[in-house]
Order: sequence, then C-alpha cells, then structure tokens
Amino acid sequence: MPNKVLALAGGVGGAKLVLGLSRILGPDELVAAVNTGDDECFHGLHVSPDLDTVMYTLAGLANPETGWGLAGDTFHALGMLRQYGAETWFNLGDRDLATHIRRTQALREGATLSQATVELCRALGVGHQVVPMSDDPVATVLATDEGELPMQQYFVQRHAQPKVKAVHYRGAAQASPSPALARALDEADLVVFCPSNPWLSIGPMLAVPGIRQGLLSAPCLTVAVSPLVGGAALRGPAAKLMAELGEEASSLGVARHYLGLCDILVIDQQDAELASGIAALGIRPVTAPIVMNTDDDKAALAQRVLELGGL
Amino acid sequence: MPNKVLALAGGVGGAKLVLGLSRILGPDELVAAVNTGDDECFHGLHVSPDLDTVMYTLAGLANPETGWGLAGDTFHALGMLRQYGAETWFNLGDRDLATHIRRTQALREGATLSQATVELCRALGVGHQVVPMSDDPVATVLATDEGELPMQQYFVQRHAQPKVKAVHYRGAAQASPSPALARALDEADLVVFCPSNPWLSIGPMLAVPGIRQGLLSAPCLTVAVSPLVGGAALRGPAAKLMAELGEEASSLGVARHYLGLCDILVIDQQDAELASGIAALGIRPVTAPIVMNTDDDKAALAQRVLELGGL
Repeated sequence: MPNKVLALAGGVGGAKLVLGLSRILGPDELVAAVNTGDDECFHGLHVSPDLDTVMYTLAGLANPETGWGLAGDTFHALGMLRQYGAETWFNLGDRDLATHIRRTQALREGATLSQATVELCRALGVGHQVVPMSDDPVATVLATDEGELPMQQYFVQRHAQPKVKAVHYRGAAQASPSPALARALDEADLVVFCPSNPWLSIGPMLAVPGIRQGLLSAPCLTVAVSPLVGGAALRGPAAKLMAELGEEASSLGVARHYLGLCDILVIDQQDAELASGIAALGIRPVTAPIVMNTDDDKAALAQRVLELGGL
Repeated sequence: MPNKVLALAGGVGGAKLVLGLSRILGPDELVAAVNTGDDECFHGLHVSPDLDTVMYTLAGLANPETGWGLAGDTFHALGMLRQYGAETWFNLGDRDLATHIRRTQALREGATLSQATVELCRALGVGHQVVPMSDDPVATVLATDEGELPMQQYFVQRHAQPKVKAVHYRGAAQASPSPALARALDEADLVVFCPSNPWLSIGPMLAVPGIRQGLLSAPCLTVAVSPLVGGAALRGPAAKLMAELGEEASSLGVARHYLGLCDILVIDQQDAELASGIAALGIRPVTAPIVMNTDDDKAALAQRVLELGGL
C-alpha cells in the first residue's frame, strides 16, 4: 500500500517542501492542496499565484530567483497592456500568461478549478497531484490602516506595508474542500502543513469549514513546519503581520495559531528555546534545519517530516 | 468644412490605402470601417484580425514583412499554449495578445466592439477613426469541398486551399452598422472601397442590410479600388476564390460584384483592356498604378482616389 500524504501549501516556501516530498513520494502518495485565497482576476484572466508556484516548481520550470513565475520568461505582453492603460503592478510573464489564458478558457467553458489544474499539470508533466483547496471562490482580504485590501494588492502592489488589523476569508464559510482534498483528508496517513504563511496561505484553508473539520477528525498525525526562523519570516510578511495582529512573531505564535490542528511543529534549531513553550501547548516541538536553499535541503526536510509522521 | 471620407477596408491591402488616406485627410475627415467577419475566438480571446491590421498600420506598429501582427513581436505565450495542448495555427504574438486580452476584457465588461476599439486606438495614438463594420457578430463561413470552414480556418489553417462553393455571412442579416459607420454613411462626401477581397473583406459589410442600403442611398460618389492586377490578387486568395465561385477572376469580376454600389473602379494600368467591359456595366473605369509598395505609393493612390471623388 502506498503512503498517502496530504500537504497543505501556499506559495514559495510551501512549494519548496512539496518539491522535497515529491522527490521521496510517488505520484499516488502525495496530494498538494494549495491556497486559492490569493487568486485574483487580472485583465479578465483568472490568476492562481500559489497553484502556479507549486505547479511550476514541480515541473522544474519555476524561476529560482523570484520563486514565482517561469524561469527565463519575458514580459512583452505586460508592456503592451501597460501601453493600453492597464494596471500592471502584478508581474505576468508571456509564458505565464498562457497558463492564465488557458485556465480562464477552461473555467469559462464550465470546468472547475480542479479540472483546469489537472489539465495544466498534465501538460507540464507534473505527476504528483496539485489541487486547489477549493473549487469555490475564497478571497483573502486584509483590513488595514489604509482600508480593506485584497491579498495581491496588499502583498504585491503595496509590498505588505499597510498595517493589518484583521484578516478575512471572504466566501470561506460557504466553500467546500475540492474533491481531491476531501478525498485526501479521508485517506491521509499524514497531513503536512508546509512552511507557508499561517494567516495568508494556510489560514484560508483552515477557514473552510469542511477542511477544518476534516483536519480535526483526521486520525493520522499532522506535522507542521514553521515558516519563521528566529522571529523573522524566511520570506514574506508573516512576522510583521503576526505582530500587527497581536500575536507573538515567532514559532510559538505559529504553534498557537495551529493549536488543536497539528501534533508536531518543526522549528528551526536556533529557535530551540521556544520548544518548552510549544510543548506546554500540547504540541510536540522538533528542531531541525528548516531553511531550504538547495534541493537536497528540501528533500532532507521532507524526509524528516515523513519520519516524524511515522512513514 | 472638412471632407468626410468613409473607407471600407479589410486587412492588409485595405490598411495600405487607409494609411495613404490618413496621410492626406485629417482625423475628422476619415472613417475607416473595417470588416469583422473574420473575427474569431482563440483561447477564449476575441481576435479581430482586420481591425488590428488597420489599427497597427495607422499606429506605425505593423509588421511590414507579414502585414499582420506587430513588428518585432515575440511568440513565447503561443509556444506555452502549444505546450498546454492548444491549437496554435493562428499566430498570436505576445504584444498582440495584449490587444486581444484587453479587448476581451472590455467586451466582457459590457463594452461594444466599437467602444473597445476606440480605447485601443486611443492608447496607440491612432487619431483617425477606425471602427468595426458592426457591433453585432457576423461570421464569414466558407462552404468548401471539405465542408464548412470559418474564415480563419479556411484562410490561415488551410491556407485557402479548399475549393470554395459559396460564401455565407452568418448573422449579417440581423446585424446593424456600427454607430460610427452609420453616421459616416449619412455624412460621407466620398465612399471608398479599399482594395480588399470583395467576397471575404468587403462582402461581409455588403451583407449587412443597413450598410448596403446606406451605400445604395448615399448621394456621394463611391470609388472602389480593385484588389486584382492582371487576373491575380496582389495578396490572398481573391482570384482563386472568384474562379471557384464562377466569377471572372479579374477586375471585371470585381466590377460585377460591386454593380450598383460603386460609381468608379480604379484598376491597374496593365488591366486597361478591361476598361470597356467595366464601362459597359455602367461603372467608370480609371486606370492607375494600384500596387502599393511604399508609403508614397499609398499616398499617391489615396490622392488619386480623393480626386476621383471630387475632393
């Protein structure tokens, strides 16, 4: 019997651990369920930034310098869109645009986001399952000192500078898990929370009642990997955001956010002093090197996570 | 009082004469009404090949080698669409795609094709009016020995090789002239049929009842320029198509097609022997150099056409 591992992932950090897991697990042993709270409509096209980051990463096409987009992509269409007066603060490369064009066409023709994603992944030779968290629209919206901002506007256009008062997940209460995620929640031998932003990447999933319930009732172990090292996010605004939300901007704050949902939290070796606080919450802290620079780092962390999960 | 010239145009040949006219006439003196029977949906995007050819030509952005598309454009998105399994026989450059993305977005947001075209032209600095023949869908469909083929499939994918039995203009009977064309038909001091394919480029316009009636009742002169020289089309399948439809593949056949609709037909000097036959139809034949290679050629032919129209 193959193992069944369900990995919940956001963008760049999540994609790294998913890549590591994919080096160890067979295509039928891993389901990567990806945040879609960041999805946005640009120029009439449906853009799924996190899905694409995971898909491009597993396809070996990701841009290693940015983490997002395709390696070696050009931006000629975007320049022309700018000439047409379009807002072009969200970078869309020419080959990347093909993904959004194709996805949008599939959705308009009646496909679900899950179905559209299957087709895209198959064409790019991605064997492991990459699935959206939900086929229903969920929008992460940040209440900030500059008013409400959708995720991409906050993160990309405003560089996460506005002060965040609260995070809302519009539509989450009415959303269902995608069919593949629902199945994976039932069958999983291990659930992994990838080192993605707990509020902005994993949060939207936890806000979907069917996902939260599935995680709470899953009989298997859940292992989370902290996205923070020494009080700072490896990438992105997680630490700043947590402080603004009144949370402790450390792996201890992450543990509190995942309380009741994860059994083990993997934290960086330099955060060992947080272990007792995490253990006091009833979550087992494990220290490991969680910074993933090379593909070997990713596979090593994935191996450690699988071992912690008893696989 | 400025002159009011209405030019009916298709793709490349039409765009050349429109460019010539635009060098002589002010922005408020010229309306180029463009065939939309070739419009097609590719990858979920609304592509208007003839409108774009005229727009890019007037903007100075057209690819001089192909006649269609943008000079120096790249095809990276198309390569990726091919990787996704899309049919990519219709060449869409990266910067060109921006046009179709922007147009499609405008149409989906409720704009008419006329309104979308105004915005695109304005952004590209096109001062003269370039307008679609109609805001209603009209589809040129060819009945061939290989079955029915939409225009682009016949022309681009099948290289105009199938034998044509008849040309249909789907939707034309229910279509209305675009507002700007309707106004131009009322106000015109001169109507010009550009040297575009009489069946595939001008034909769709003549099939719209409001356009045909407007032309028949227009009190001004109508000057047509033949797209054929010595029994061959300067470009495209006009001569082959005319022969297949049982018409004489020459400027005399063109004259017969425009019978009752044009007063003067400008034919090439080497077709002088056709003049008497054309005159016998009640159309005044005028010989002139109608091959437009340089911008000076285009302006000279445009000047000749305006003079023939009494302007």
